[in-house]
Amino acid sequence: MPHAHPLLADFPVIVSSMVHWGEMDAYGHVNNTVFFRYFETARIAFLERCGLLETYDEHRVGAILHSTDCRFRLPLLYPDTVLIGARTLEVGEDRFTMGYRIVSQQQNGIAADGTGVIVCYDYANDRKVALPAAVREGVLALRARGT
Amino acid sequence: MPHAHPLLADFPVIVSSMVHWGEMDAYGHVNNTVFFRYFETARIAFLERCGLLETYDEHRVGAILHSTDCRFRLPLLYPDTVLIGARTLEVGEDRFTMGYRIVSQQQNGIAADGTGVIVCYDYANDRKVALPAAVREGVLALRARGT
Amino acid sequence: MPHAHPLLADFPVIVSSMVHWGEMDAYGHVNNTVFFRYFETARIAFLERCGLLETYDEHRVGAILHSTDCRFRLPLLYPDTVLIGARTLEVGEDRFTMGYRIVSQQQNGIAADGTGVIVCYDYANDRKVALPAAVREGVLALRARGT
Amino acid sequence: MPHAHPLLADFPVIVSSMVHWGEMDAYGHVNNTVFFRYFETARIAFLERCGLLETYDEHRVGAILHSTDCRFRLPLLYPDTVLIGARTLEVGEDRFTMGYRIVSQQQNGIAADGTGVIVCYDYANDRKVALPAAVREGVLALRARGT
Repeated sequence: MPHAHPLLADFPVIVSSMVHWGEMDAYGHVNNTVFFRYFETARIAFLERCGLLETYDEHRVGAILHSTDCRFRLPLLYPDTVLIGARTLEVGEDRFTMGYRIVSQQQNGIAADGTGVIVCYDYANDRKVALPAAVREGVLALRARGT
Repeated sequence: MPHAHPLLADFPVIVSSMVHWGEMDAYGHVNNTVFFRYFETARIAFLERCGLLETYDEHRVGAILHSTDCRFRLPLLYPDTVLIGARTLEVGEDRFTMGYRIVSQQQNGIAADGTGVIVCYDYANDRKVALPAAVREGVLALRARGT
Repeated sequence: MPHAHPLLADFPVIVSSMVHWGEMDAYGHVNNTVFFRYFETARIAFLERCGLLETYDEHRVGAILHSTDCRFRLPLLYPDTVLIGARTLEVGEDRFTMGYRIVSQQQNGIAADGTGVIVCYDYANDRKVALPAAVREGVLALRARGT
Repeated sequence: MPHAHPLLADFPVIVSSMVHWGEMDAYGHVNNTVFFRYFETARIAFLERCGLLETYDEHRVGAILHSTDCRFRLPLLYPDTVLIGARTLEVGEDRFTMGYRIVSQQQNGIAADGTGVIVCYDYANDRKVALPAAVREGVLALRARGT
């Protein structure tokens, strides 16, 4: 795996992104909203892996972001390349919680940790629905190793 | 009209937007990409006025941004509220050119001028098409007064 | 107060922002990162009100965003204008927690609720410090009425 | 060079960036403002190479973006990784013109071409100044090969 990093050993989904200079704000650090953009990029990769983007295209059953949070640990600066990990934390009937981690390669440290709750939604009938069995299996498979 | 301003006397479409603190970059000025966001907001208001968003919903004939440019005149800072004007500059068979202007209320001056070329596109048949007659009329009506 | 709204009765700081068309993502809703931009805009107005931007300019004692979260309630769409409220929830020695709320005027409903923890930081000496007395007073004054 | 591509043979400065899902707008394509973010990222790499970021830190002589434009050629979609090239087009006394090109690896084609005019500015004395000799040499060295 090209993006492996000891600080992301428990994260089965990892994406990498360069930090753009223009992502820094007037304080000279990457703006807090960009951390959520990084989380989102890992979330999309995660949803692809567990089939929840496909079910939307086929049956209009998809993911809604119910809530999300971020604990900032290190300010990020340009130039840098971040690794962003995603994994499953908890699985419910119609929802699951993901964990995110952003690692700065430049600083070799954790820039942020966060979570997001995803609810499974039937857009055709406009209501929450149970996770399709295959998706549920996919989500369970993306827990940290050994949990 | 709530947004009238002498520097926008020639702009029939005007929208107003507060400057968000987070739109400033590490140089402490509103980042250049945000100027194009402001242009876009005025463009959308313009396209609504001349019916080119409606034709997309009804017949999948819509607008494509072919090219755009910006001449920066004043750095923008938070706090400020900008007025963004749009108008028709030239009208062709399957395209037209819009002019944009951003006015800083805080500095009472022109922050930027720009243009954008819009091409009319038939998404169903994947080809450029002539401007529908009603749209063409709408676009012509949004020229500067007296031109 | 120009921005008063029954859903924001408990929020002493309120700012207003138009929704830009370009803030919507490929799902046709305002992207989740933009909610944090809205929170930030209210946070900056709040920090101005309680003097924590001024102390940075004068003594390099300023605010650090320690963590933040958002609970999404309604999808936002263009066109709309949102009202964003901020208030004090808890005050500690060297930090305080703010509450945020985004209200959609178009839908006349709560689009999101969230919180943010602000830590007071002495940039000259690179360490957390107690809130200056005047700032602390300002923060306490921005609690919901009657609390 | 890791990022070489036949379509960028004439561009001595090349950076690479993944396309974030959230960079797409409601039309399902990467939003036009993001193209200018990509240009900016290549511009910063270019300015580093010719020393114009260093002169700012040392003598407060730096770069101002005077104007920029973009000709859109292909819509960009997630997932993709773009290569962004920058090169010198023209050099004047106190300014120079850069050319930009965005190449989609997914589509193996040119997504956009553009230019930007950079003016050299003395921030300490608040006026345009001639390009420092070393910078001028650096800028001239970043022309397309053989020109």
